Amino acid sequence: MMKDFQTQLEHAASQIEKDLKTKLAERDEAPESLLEAMRYASLDGGKRFRPFLVHATAALFQADEQLVRDTALAIECIHCYSLIHDDLPSMDNDELRRGRPTLWKFTDEATAILAGDSLQTMAFEILSTNATLSNGLMKLELINELAVAAGKAGMVGGQIRDMAAENNDDPQFADILLIHSQKTGALITFAASAGAIIGGADNTSKEALKLYGQKLGLAFQLKDDLLDVVGNSKDLGKTPGKDADVGKATLVSTLGAGKAELFLNNLKDGALYALKPFGEKADTLREAITFVCERDR
Amino acid sequence: MMKDFQTQLEHAASQIEKDLKTKLAERDEAPESLLEAMRYASLDGGKRFRPFLVHATAALFQADEQLVRDTALAIECIHCYSLIHDDLPSMDNDELRRGRPTLWKFTDEATAILAGDSLQTMAFEILSTNATLSNGLMKLELINELAVAAGKAGMVGGQIRDMAAENNDDPQFADILLIHSQKTGALITFAASAGAIIGGADNTSKEALKLYGQKLGLAFQLKDDLLDVVGNSKDLGKTPGKDADVGKATLVSTLGAGKAELFLNNLKDGALYALKPFGEKADTLREAITFVCERDR
Repeated sequence: MMKDFQTQLEHAASQIEKDLKTKLAERDEAPESLLEAMRYASLDGGKRFRPFLVHATAALFQADEQLVRDTALAIECIHCYSLIHDDLPSMDNDELRRGRPTLWKFTDEATAILAGDSLQTMAFEILSTNATLSNGLMKLELINELAVAAGKAGMVGGQIRDMAAENNDDPQFADILLIHSQKTGALITFAASAGAIIGGADNTSKEALKLYGQKLGLAFQLKDDLLDVVGNSKDLGKTPGKDADVGKATLVSTLGAGKAELFLNNLKDGALYALKPFGEKADTLREAITFVCERDR
Repeated sequence: MMKDFQTQLEHAASQIEKDLKTKLAERDEAPESLLEAMRYASLDGGKRFRPFLVHATAALFQADEQLVRDTALAIECIHCYSLIHDDLPSMDNDELRRGRPTLWKFTDEATAILAGDSLQTMAFEILSTNATLSNGLMKLELINELAVAAGKAGMVGGQIRDMAAENNDDPQFADILLIHSQKTGALITFAASAGAIIGGADNTSKEALKLYGQKLGLAFQLKDDLLDVVGNSKDLGKTPGKDADVGKATLVSTLGAGKAELFLNNLKDGALYALKPFGEKADTLREAITFVCERDR
């Protein structure tokens, strides 16, 4: 019997919170100011949607619980590092995130860069710990796919493309699709397929969950863009209308709000289609795509 | 029969150059401007001392050549990423490295931060590729030790401590030792012991090479500080006397040049002592510590 979506989301979030706290309280020789910065930028934050995806897809299979938690934790470390760096003055120059000062505003740029750097490193440290003969190759597959998703042809590549697009007078819908598929899509897709890796699922199941993750990731971004057009600061916990203010092209501005809504529905249908083989075991994942498309913040 | 030190250093350097070029020419979906930045900051640069250490220590054992190369490459990617980020305006604010503009001067801060980020990611991608049942646990050990050496209680922790020391009126010799043991020592120590991991050496051998690496890393830094006092821009390829100009405490300023020279000899003796069990097979490593202590640039 699956728990419902909100319950599972909260469960994943509380587990991540606990695991991050434990990891950042280790008695190694890390300087306290660095640990404080890493905690500030990673604790008490966000929906923890990626960790939820790892848990919810792993639940479709017989997956080792500790490895599910480690993978969720590693992905969230990568996500938090990317937010810290994206917020920097030389990038998006954001002063507010989740209703609080961004890390570079709270401390300073150098500390923020380094806290991001070490959160990235920590992700790979976590996934390479407690290796055994029986889980070794699985861990290496997770590390490799995480690195590819986070790297030059994934998340970081997408951020480079996103910045370049700001200097492009006439970015096309296809350009923006590629930006999102790399910048946010790659990590979400990995989060959605990681459960299949940990569960030792066959390739067909893994590909289906990748497809689900791709649709979900793009839907997430498209809905964000739609909310940016209509949202307000209190609901979003960030500055609204920012994209429009800086004249930034988005999926919505290149499609128009009407077509964007249709496209969003199309993505939702695609995600649901990918879940068909899993039957009612995948109901939580069905609720997740519905939540993403229908949320109001 | 071991080749001599300079020959082996050049061999490691040319192999790294080749492997970096190959890796950064992969046809994935990385944006060209990012690849260009990664190439600028990683090719044609430096002594490649860490890759040399991996090769030279691996040569003491029966080590898999491909894994030696991958490990050397991964370590060099981490080293290059750290230089890019250290040079940033919010950190050391360096405009010159190896006689050329630093990456952020050559491109811009955002691109430099992201090129560093993706060089770090690439290190872990490299080490997690081509896993087999027989090398899996070895690869995971390498990944884990690399992450610990590069992370919050290693290289990044040391950089945080280094910046904090600049605001410390009276840093002590012990504080500066800790900075260097983390900031540069941790990665060099890993480079020196990685060969033992890949060679499947016993723990005694691994500990001996770690000790060698610790002494060598510190000697490297101490000699750098001594050269900073006496060097000139042409020889160093960077701005000399910079530490003294900004009133930065160093191993040399807290010890005095005379005691610093004695300490350097002491480190050299310690490194040579650690190599005793390996007999004449370790002659190249003996030449390496001599080179580090006696170089004039």
